[in-house]
Amino acid sequence: MRSLLIVAHGSRREASNQEVKDLAERVRQRPDLMFDDVDYGFLELAKPSVEEALACCVRRGASEVTVFPYFLAAGRHVVADIPEAITAFETTHPGVAVSVTSHLGASELLPDAILAVALRDPNVG
Amino acid sequence: MRSLLIVAHGSRREASNQEVKDLAERVRQRPDLMFDDVDYGFLELAKPSVEEALACCVRRGASEVTVFPYFLAAGRHVVADIPEAITAFETTHPGVAVSVTSHLGASELLPDAILAVALRDPNVG
Repeated sequence: MRSLLIVAHGSRREASNQEVKDLAERVRQRPDLMFDDVDYGFLELAKPSVEEALACCVRRGASEVTVFPYFLAAGRHVVADIPEAITAFETTHPGVAVSVTSHLGASELLPDAILAVALRDPNVG
Repeated sequence: MRSLLIVAHGSRREASNQEVKDLAERVRQRPDLMFDDVDYGFLELAKPSVEEALACCVRRGASEVTVFPYFLAAGRHVVADIPEAITAFETTHPGVAVSVTSHLGASELLPDAILAVALRDPNVG
């Protein structure tokens, strides 16, 4: 069983964390989803932590977890913090295969996503 | 003439700001672009500021500017800081029509963008 784990920074503002939870739900409902489950976790300021979220994926049956860094820039959180959290998890869960994708800011679909939003501007068209 | 202005937070890390500049260039090169120009600006920590970027759009001939908040969450920066920067600009440039779209995190294409990245994971497929 394969899970997708969306990892966001986390915010003191609960509405921002809720945006991440809603996004995970929108991904989960995609008809072309190639994962058995979609979950979310936060690096800071919100729960569940990355380690807690990974453990939750495993409790629900995941043997493979693909971690997606929901970050716009490849800063310290993407380059160091997320890999470190995964390494810490793997030392206690040797049977689980955890991999990390590139971060959102590197997505080739971002220009499309931006133009789709911009063209809904009532002043454009 | 109509410009699209991508507004990001800005970072002390120049590589993160460069990611925004590269993204603006990727948007600019889209064949289906419905804007005459694409530029970028930063709220904090990097140049140009939103006001400077708006003024630059106008100097290059823009009479309409669509501002796209390149933010994942609708926090203070999206809800207050960007609108305030635009209002400050408009008081000194009454002939320019500036509008703001919803932020990136609200894009309907985000689930597609996430799955496109996740499915390139060599462990998935």
